[in-house]
Amino acid sequence: MTRVITMRFSGILSPVITPFGADLRPDAARLARQCHWLLSRNCGLAVFGTNSEANSLSVEEKIELLDALVEAGVDPARMMPGTGACALPDTVRLTAHAVKRGCAGALMLPPFYYKGVSDEGLFRAYAEVIERVGDARLRIYLYHIPPIAQVPITLDLIERLIAAYPDTVVGIKDSSGDWDNTQAMLERFPGFTVFAGSESFLLRTLRGGGAGCISAAANINPAAIHRLYTEWQSPQAEALQADLDSLRGVMQKFPMIPALKEAVAHYSGDAEWRRVRPPLVELSEDQRRELHAGLSKLEFTMPGLVA
Amino acid sequence: MTRVITMRFSGILSPVITPFGADLRPDAARLARQCHWLLSRNCGLAVFGTNSEANSLSVEEKIELLDALVEAGVDPARMMPGTGACALPDTVRLTAHAVKRGCAGALMLPPFYYKGVSDEGLFRAYAEVIERVGDARLRIYLYHIPPIAQVPITLDLIERLIAAYPDTVVGIKDSSGDWDNTQAMLERFPGFTVFAGSESFLLRTLRGGGAGCISAAANINPAAIHRLYTEWQSPQAEALQADLDSLRGVMQKFPMIPALKEAVAHYSGDAEWRRVRPPLVELSEDQRRELHAGLSKLEFTMPGLVA
Repeated sequence: MTRVITMRFSGILSPVITPFGADLRPDAARLARQCHWLLSRNCGLAVFGTNSEANSLSVEEKIELLDALVEAGVDPARMMPGTGACALPDTVRLTAHAVKRGCAGALMLPPFYYKGVSDEGLFRAYAEVIERVGDARLRIYLYHIPPIAQVPITLDLIERLIAAYPDTVVGIKDSSGDWDNTQAMLERFPGFTVFAGSESFLLRTLRGGGAGCISAAANINPAAIHRLYTEWQSPQAEALQADLDSLRGVMQKFPMIPALKEAVAHYSGDAEWRRVRPPLVELSEDQRRELHAGLSKLEFTMPGLVA
Repeated sequence: MTRVITMRFSGILSPVITPFGADLRPDAARLARQCHWLLSRNCGLAVFGTNSEANSLSVEEKIELLDALVEAGVDPARMMPGTGACALPDTVRLTAHAVKRGCAGALMLPPFYYKGVSDEGLFRAYAEVIERVGDARLRIYLYHIPPIAQVPITLDLIERLIAAYPDTVVGIKDSSGDWDNTQAMLERFPGFTVFAGSESFLLRTLRGGGAGCISAAANINPAAIHRLYTEWQSPQAEALQADLDSLRGVMQKFPMIPALKEAVAHYSGDAEWRRVRPPLVELSEDQRRELHAGLSKLEFTMPGLVA
């Protein structure tokens, strides 16, 4: 491979929630509008993330959505689609397509069905994807989310991947929820692009030399999260972080994906957003009331969000 | 749907290991030979199971393999392919294809990426698959394997599925490793076809009214497991179970899938069988020696296995 210079991601990215029609098919037009709204709030697009219900979508559906977004004018240089699947050919196919469409990075889960696998096995899995995609433009951001994938990306594995593919394996999203782990990555791998998996760790991540966060809450609160990203060295940084934590405190009382969709449905006046794919279930009436009571106490709004 | 009478599975089934070529593509001809060998030992074919590395295969690869097996004369009436994936369209597509090809059942994982999901969400996931496949011939065997899928199928969920789809949701493979759970299923759901997920529980399962087992070890030890199935009421039943337990004791010192492949490679003289797909790793030289030492102490052989 020849060396290719590609901008690294930094700042705030949203694992964009995926709207579904009544037949449970993804709704590309609605998704494109949401992506444009997020971009207008300085929020990058980690489409096909965990909070996008991406693992409830087939590879074909993700390829079609990606094509539709690019055709709707969503800038692929701001897109970091999730491309990691259980099966090697699926990961290769979607990753190659994302590179071809100009996406500036891919957020890559390890293969997550088999548990208790070795670092050697995971190294081979990532290496096979890189070799098979075979494109110097590929930039991989590893996706460490042990609470859900149940297959961790260890520090030793990261070290080995960076050593073997320094121009390709360029960063990570740490959704372990374990600050000590994020800190260890920041200290051990200077120059590696580390994103917090939640805005709760944004200020600490930036102070430690990290790149930003890729966060569920960026779906509904992108401007405030981005403000902390730009003002983290200012005197009000702690207060901005506290505000973000208050919103997170309300959201995390509920299943996150249905709660995000409920919030977007409410503020956009577009009930279609409530729909989730099984095995998820939308919020109950009681949960909806409780969520909106919590958000209105914070005087939370989503300015400019339109259906 | 009209009522369709289909034979229920019973006896011993193997989650057939999947051979790969040097390019890591599945090797359909080798798999067909193995399937014929297993059938000649009275062993049914739970192809695309956990031990088949099925979750490292794309839907397209599984469809191609299934077609190749049927074309190679493998009887679909003896096949219970694993068809459950994370994404609804993938599960629907593979399940519909299996029914169309005449497979007498489908072994169906729940969607397994999202954790902590509700019984309501899992019920909807199975219901959507059943409605979308829309074929009265479909017979689903639920696949409960919480150590790996990390998404359990509770007794309450089973009850609800049986009530809604009595002709379709006809059985389960219990790979919880928890005998109390298997026993509870046997007691609570008379007429439901319960398979132990390992031959370790075969005798207890048969005594409790269960149908048999779907077991990794059936890949290498089908005749002995089948013998216990036919002689479970005989005086030698306990001794036969103890023999099965001895073999299992040797195998479970190693990662199961690479150990099964190593054993088949060794007894068939066909080194190609050793290959696994990432994230799995074949046994090391030391592990291979230890495995064969353990098996030879049991005077274990695989008679009639040819490459």
